Amino acid sequence: MPQLGLLHGRAWAVLFGQLRRPPGAVCIRAVHSHSQGTRDLSPQQMVVREKILDMVVSCFKRHGAKGLDTPAFELKEMLTEKYGEDSGLIYDLKDQGGELLSLRYDLTVPFARYLAMNKVKKMKRYHVGKVWRRESPTIAQGRYREFCQCDFDIAGQFDPMIPDAECLKIVCEILSGLQLGDFLIKVNDRRILDGIFAVCGVPESKFHAICSSVDKLDKMSWKDVRHEMVAKKGLAAEVADRIGDYVQCHGGVSLVKQMFQDPRLSQNKQALEGLGDLKLLFEYLTLFGIAEKISFDLSLARGLDYYTGVIYEAVLLQTPAHAEEELLNVGSVAAGGRYDGLVGMFDPKGHNVPCVGLSIGVERIFSIVEQRMKTFGEKIRTTETQVFVATPQKNFLQERLKLIAELWDAGIKAELMYKNNPKLLTQLHYCENMGIPLVVIIGEQELKEGVIKLRSVASREEVAITRENLVAEIQKRLSES
Amino acid sequence: MPQLGLLHGRAWAVLFGQLRRPPGAVCIRAVHSHSQGTRDLSPQQMVVREKILDMVVSCFKRHGAKGLDTPAFELKEMLTEKYGEDSGLIYDLKDQGGELLSLRYDLTVPFARYLAMNKVKKMKRYHVGKVWRRESPTIAQGRYREFCQCDFDIAGQFDPMIPDAECLKIVCEILSGLQLGDFLIKVNDRRILDGIFAVCGVPESKFHAICSSVDKLDKMSWKDVRHEMVAKKGLAAEVADRIGDYVQCHGGVSLVKQMFQDPRLSQNKQALEGLGDLKLLFEYLTLFGIAEKISFDLSLARGLDYYTGVIYEAVLLQTPAHAEEELLNVGSVAAGGRYDGLVGMFDPKGHNVPCVGLSIGVERIFSIVEQRMKTFGEKIRTTETQVFVATPQKNFLQERLKLIAELWDAGIKAELMYKNNPKLLTQLHYCENMGIPLVVIIGEQELKEGVIKLRSVASREEVAITRENLVAEIQKRLSES
Repeated sequence: MPQLGLLHGRAWAVLFGQLRRPPGAVCIRAVHSHSQGTRDLSPQQMVVREKILDMVVSCFKRHGAKGLDTPAFELKEMLTEKYGEDSGLIYDLKDQGGELLSLRYDLTVPFARYLAMNKVKKMKRYHVGKVWRRESPTIAQGRYREFCQCDFDIAGQFDPMIPDAECLKIVCEILSGLQLGDFLIKVNDRRILDGIFAVCGVPESKFHAICSSVDKLDKMSWKDVRHEMVAKKGLAAEVADRIGDYVQCHGGVSLVKQMFQDPRLSQNKQALEGLGDLKLLFEYLTLFGIAEKISFDLSLARGLDYYTGVIYEAVLLQTPAHAEEELLNVGSVAAGGRYDGLVGMFDPKGHNVPCVGLSIGVERIFSIVEQRMKTFGEKIRTTETQVFVATPQKNFLQERLKLIAELWDAGIKAELMYKNNPKLLTQLHYCENMGIPLVVIIGEQELKEGVIKLRSVASREEVAITRENLVAEIQKRLSES
Repeated sequence: MPQLGLLHGRAWAVLFGQLRRPPGAVCIRAVHSHSQGTRDLSPQQMVVREKILDMVVSCFKRHGAKGLDTPAFELKEMLTEKYGEDSGLIYDLKDQGGELLSLRYDLTVPFARYLAMNKVKKMKRYHVGKVWRRESPTIAQGRYREFCQCDFDIAGQFDPMIPDAECLKIVCEILSGLQLGDFLIKVNDRRILDGIFAVCGVPESKFHAICSSVDKLDKMSWKDVRHEMVAKKGLAAEVADRIGDYVQCHGGVSLVKQMFQDPRLSQNKQALEGLGDLKLLFEYLTLFGIAEKISFDLSLARGLDYYTGVIYEAVLLQTPAHAEEELLNVGSVAAGGRYDGLVGMFDPKGHNVPCVGLSIGVERIFSIVEQRMKTFGEKIRTTETQVFVATPQKNFLQERLKLIAELWDAGIKAELMYKNNPKLLTQLHYCENMGIPLVVIIGEQELKEGVIKLRSVASREEVAITRENLVAEIQKRLSES
């Protein structure tokens, strides 16, 4: 597979005509359009998606995960107070009598609700499904209001860091398997962040606000983030500077050891717990042979409220293979972490089930792969048809129908033209355009002699085969190709 | 595969605990439940679904269909005036500013919208996706508010009845392939029904109302339907009786010929067109070898407004294989028809694209297959794990992690226990319960000798294999089994 350059969502949105209606503009002929921020997926896109999803799901299954599905909508109250600042992006259904419902915002909260509702104490599950968020219609930035998520989670009380390490192994297997180029997984721990805020002198009431400022460090400079902390969130300048000393650090396991020696941080119980777990995590990641893909990054914060321990985010490293390719930030392509308190929020008695999981950012991956195929001019076959049933003769529909039924019944993927008297050239052109490898041709002469002509579209070679041997011969040819 | 008896949705709803909350009852602990009329799909159910959907999709692909996906919600105005009496069942989204949206009610209307919006004149596509309907919460009757549809449609201007015949062939292939027992496909034509109404003296303004009465003939006797026509819909008794003479007829191609001779019907242009097409359809179905599965049934009406020509509905024939099985009506398991006017409703200039398609009633099929597996006590494996990595020794986590990473990297589906010191018996029991065929066992002794023990769970036989040969040996064993 050729190496890929990383292209921004914009390029592919332009490609598929998503930008014809500028954001916010009123669509005059809404009568034949879909809703803003959503899109239809063309057969070309569906082929790419199917291949990527197959690969992701087969990795999840390789790690022993079971499938699970939950409804598209949940009781509205299930989703409240789970997503922090983003809760305003939840889609509500109209009150048509009955319960108040909302479209799911992610697959994690429904999973936690499922565990609590069914009193499941232990489960390794994957879920591929759509989620909906009322993002502002900045489709140009590749954000859609409906998108696909691929989640893998391990629920249960286990010895520390073994499931967490497996989640990171899975991210590595998927990103390597998809050949997306070089990548890095940033790792941090919510307890270390909280410890840093505490020892730097952030009042506890400001932990959340300051955490969400730190979360912006992948898009903003430290100078700007510091300004936000001090000017907008009222943090003392010297407190911000102390935080700055920490959150600008990143490195490998040696940084974990260094932080253990840190005079202030080593006094904080929470931070020590987090550091202890990270040390163990690095040990397991070394055994898995993936430690060099991992960076302990103190600036990683993750937006969602429900994380309680280790958190991670995978980013593609942007070495463009070709100078002519646009170089833009593709953002994270996988993320996740530990959320030990979420299931308890759904349990009547507050019983908890510790969980750790990951979500693959397949939408970004889809657009990268689509863009790569476009750049390299790869033609995508949108059907799997193996054989086309053709005739050079008029009034041969009956024979074609009998023949194609034989092929279908033998499990062969076959098509014909829905015309009584199609032209032979039209039929052969169709095969070339669609990439159909074989054509069977039946006519007066063949019928008389009890044979069929089998034609290879690529080489244009034709051989006559007896009718009885046709299916066997086609199957032989297909198995060889 | 064993033959199956046909069971009602109730049995399977009971089985999966869907009936704990009686319809209409208020749920006290809604805080840990899903919304009414929806359900989570368990890993067992997901396995059954995946197998059935794979089979359905592979049939669609065998017939040259491309995949397509559309958003879960559409502009509300797209869905109005497409579904007749059922429009009240559409879910609307709350007006949170912006467009008015509704959840899709089927996959056909979004497909027609897609064709019009992209000016596609010709397309053979399949779509597997969820749809949502605000059915009253009579879950006991197996009706859910969220359910899966599998649609195949052929759009384009072609010679008559060739695509229509292919749709019926597909229904036959799928129902035969799933081994659901004997089935029958009822066929009729909207033009014949309209012709009957016209020649019997129904005023044109009542065609729709009378058609929806006829639609009830699969659940109600003719006596009751006649009563509804006369008493509720104000039809003259003699008109109803004339209709009765027709709609109680069903048969094969000979009935088509008989209707051609009918003194009244043969005077109606629309009816003659419909009969002409059905005659041709039967000819093609004979060539496909499926004519004996088809019944021309004048009582078939189909609810939806958008059909314009041939319509069909497949029903399972209820010969119970086992006397102890509950015998209840499973209703139709596939249906469809021709809708030549729908695309034009979305086109600014009203340009039409003739379409014909089918929808497989996979939810009913899922419950039948699940019930059958339960009846026959078939155990469903919910994971695909091939190898379990075990140890009899304490402090062997590191070795287990190194070993399992090797297996994963070789593409082998493997699991281990997330414990530092699990008991060997616990590990072996897990394999037996989960149906994992192979265990690799590593301990002090094996480590010293550079070997691994490979154990077959079924036979309990163990052999020692050198570490270097382990992956190859496992792959050999797996390919043989």
